[in-house]
Amino acid sequence: MSASTSPLAPAEFPTMPSVAGVQLATYAAGLRYQGRPDLFLAFVAPGSSAAGTFTTSRCPSAPVDWCRQHIGSGSGRAVVVNAGNANAFTGSAGFSVSEATAHGVADLLEIRPAEVFLSSTGVIGELPDVEAITAALPALVNEMSDSSPEAWAEAANAIRTTDTFAKGSTAAVGSTGCSVVGIAKGSGMIAPDMATMLAYVFTDVRVEPHDLQRMLGDAVQYSFNRITVDSDTSTSDTVLAFATGQGGHAVDGTNEAEFMAALKSVLLDLAHQIVRDGEGATKFVEVHVAGAETTDAAQRIARSIADSPLVKTALAAEDANWGRIVMAVGKSGEAADRDALSIQIGPELVARNGVAEDGYSEARATNHLRGEHIEIRVDVGVGSSSSTVWTCDLTHGYIEINAGYRS
Amino acid sequence: MSASTSPLAPAEFPTMPSVAGVQLATYAAGLRYQGRPDLFLAFVAPGSSAAGTFTTSRCPSAPVDWCRQHIGSGSGRAVVVNAGNANAFTGSAGFSVSEATAHGVADLLEIRPAEVFLSSTGVIGELPDVEAITAALPALVNEMSDSSPEAWAEAANAIRTTDTFAKGSTAAVGSTGCSVVGIAKGSGMIAPDMATMLAYVFTDVRVEPHDLQRMLGDAVQYSFNRITVDSDTSTSDTVLAFATGQGGHAVDGTNEAEFMAALKSVLLDLAHQIVRDGEGATKFVEVHVAGAETTDAAQRIARSIADSPLVKTALAAEDANWGRIVMAVGKSGEAADRDALSIQIGPELVARNGVAEDGYSEARATNHLRGEHIEIRVDVGVGSSSSTVWTCDLTHGYIEINAGYRS
Repeated sequence: MSASTSPLAPAEFPTMPSVAGVQLATYAAGLRYQGRPDLFLAFVAPGSSAAGTFTTSRCPSAPVDWCRQHIGSGSGRAVVVNAGNANAFTGSAGFSVSEATAHGVADLLEIRPAEVFLSSTGVIGELPDVEAITAALPALVNEMSDSSPEAWAEAANAIRTTDTFAKGSTAAVGSTGCSVVGIAKGSGMIAPDMATMLAYVFTDVRVEPHDLQRMLGDAVQYSFNRITVDSDTSTSDTVLAFATGQGGHAVDGTNEAEFMAALKSVLLDLAHQIVRDGEGATKFVEVHVAGAETTDAAQRIARSIADSPLVKTALAAEDANWGRIVMAVGKSGEAADRDALSIQIGPELVARNGVAEDGYSEARATNHLRGEHIEIRVDVGVGSSSSTVWTCDLTHGYIEINAGYRS
Repeated sequence: MSASTSPLAPAEFPTMPSVAGVQLATYAAGLRYQGRPDLFLAFVAPGSSAAGTFTTSRCPSAPVDWCRQHIGSGSGRAVVVNAGNANAFTGSAGFSVSEATAHGVADLLEIRPAEVFLSSTGVIGELPDVEAITAALPALVNEMSDSSPEAWAEAANAIRTTDTFAKGSTAAVGSTGCSVVGIAKGSGMIAPDMATMLAYVFTDVRVEPHDLQRMLGDAVQYSFNRITVDSDTSTSDTVLAFATGQGGHAVDGTNEAEFMAALKSVLLDLAHQIVRDGEGATKFVEVHVAGAETTDAAQRIARSIADSPLVKTALAAEDANWGRIVMAVGKSGEAADRDALSIQIGPELVARNGVAEDGYSEARATNHLRGEHIEIRVDVGVGSSSSTVWTCDLTHGYIEINAGYRS
């Protein structure tokens, strides 16, 4: 585990407002980590809407199975997260641990188990100690307090595993006085020891469950689904949203855009923070692909570039090796006109119409690559659709972190 | 560029027999490298059959375009390879270089340009010096001699770029006295500076062009299409086969299996050698997936495991982190029954029916991972199809090689 904070980390954790109807708690249960909180609880007001999106993995964790069974109701009162053990690939015994956790929390909070959502992040294939978790729940519940800047920061810290910094973001919902607040964790797309992508979003506006689910899905598509660190996909990736309706404003046809803007802003910011905490990352990289046949094609070409180990190692070396970008476009399998392709690195036009641009200056391109925020723009010359992916470079740090032993 | 030979290299270059009807030449033209041959020519007897398979890249190099235009005829007399410049992403000027090279060789050998096949490997995006290449052709042709063990070794060396060892393989065609002989280069799937996958195969049996094309396609599917170093795909990948018919035997319905066995043996051996020369590789890794719905699904799951940076870094660390294997199965998108999944590392059964196996010994699994030849076996529990992929681990060496500057 890398102890030092990513060089791409924001200067500080944001000051995030209290959200009416949201109580928070953290607790150091010592389940795996010592001397730090490893349990997080959010408890939301009666009548809150809940929505969620989950990993596409064919081997999801037990908590993901649990959430999927219950998210359809659109109502939720609590979410509990434990850091240290993913409760993934643990069979029916693992699912029983999730059930017992949900029932324990429900009893303490006097709600129904089906209103309790769960995430676990950490090692895969080890059955969590159900006694230890359920024994810690009363103390966790006892720590509950109204959401506040300090409580959000503690919550964001409690869900960290390999993260080198806590991740939070907030946005105002237009001029309603209401907010969207989110916390997240993640630094590789997954590492069973231990990184996965988790995000929890809370708002005090009222949003009908089916609207919340639809907007969350769209906002995740726009944010978390457009980042990549190492192309790997966790068994546990989860985004949950809760709308308490305690802020005196409701989302309807007239102001949906305002809420959506705030939701997207929070999720995109959290997604970017996860990239900025990419294992070993020294560059934040934006890959923009235009001229594609469809948005999906543009996204896949951008992802082919962003996931290419050869592109990512070149960026780490600040090497304007644009041949590797051509290679990655070519291997995407999507339509691209080689002889109409253009490539830009930062402000420098590298190639146009399938050949190196007259007057291309490798020195200027390299100069851009020396910065921390890299922009690569590609036009594949076959259509008018575009998309963007954010990623980081591939360095010795990634190998160092991921080729280390689990224990 | 790493100068030291891969730890996974074979002990020595094989002794490869003369193939009747094949003449070879190499020449140090100094196009990019100094003090080593960088041009390779093979000249085959009149009436030889030719077949080829090429990169699936949407941005293929000019020589690949040239070969594709002419391979359909099924007849070929020569192949010329230059190492140092890929002639990729060079537009119509690049294609003119290929045309000029083919015409130059054809004039010297008194054959038709359409019978000359070409490969270029090296930097992408720089126009090759056509004058330098064509000026060197008479000297290259002048070096021609009958194929022999020494000439094969020289040829295999002339086509190297980042390869740390020359790659050759040979097999007898049953008891005919005829042979299949192949040479190859490649150490990453691509690196514009400079690695790509090239292979040239020669036999003195007679094979009809359409049979040769069909069998080559099947054998490539069985060999080169089942390896991965870094998931990247070159703009220049090319496999060409020539059958001279000068050995006194023809392939027909009665002995096709014998020829196919020899062809597959040579291509699989060359493919394995490319993996063994994977940039930074310290482990040769066989990933076998069974219990899949289709062979293609098994192949995609195996590839998802073999391409996962988290799996590859764990293997580099000799860490039996099987949670990462579960993750990679899950992200493949192919049908898999999490609760029927089994995983084996070498001789050690790690997990069965979706949970860690009773009595699983991490020490025994780790002991297997300490070796150079790693076997991972996964059963996904939904069908009866299987497939295998070969790969290598992901180490600091890969970053070292690929994050270095081109010059």
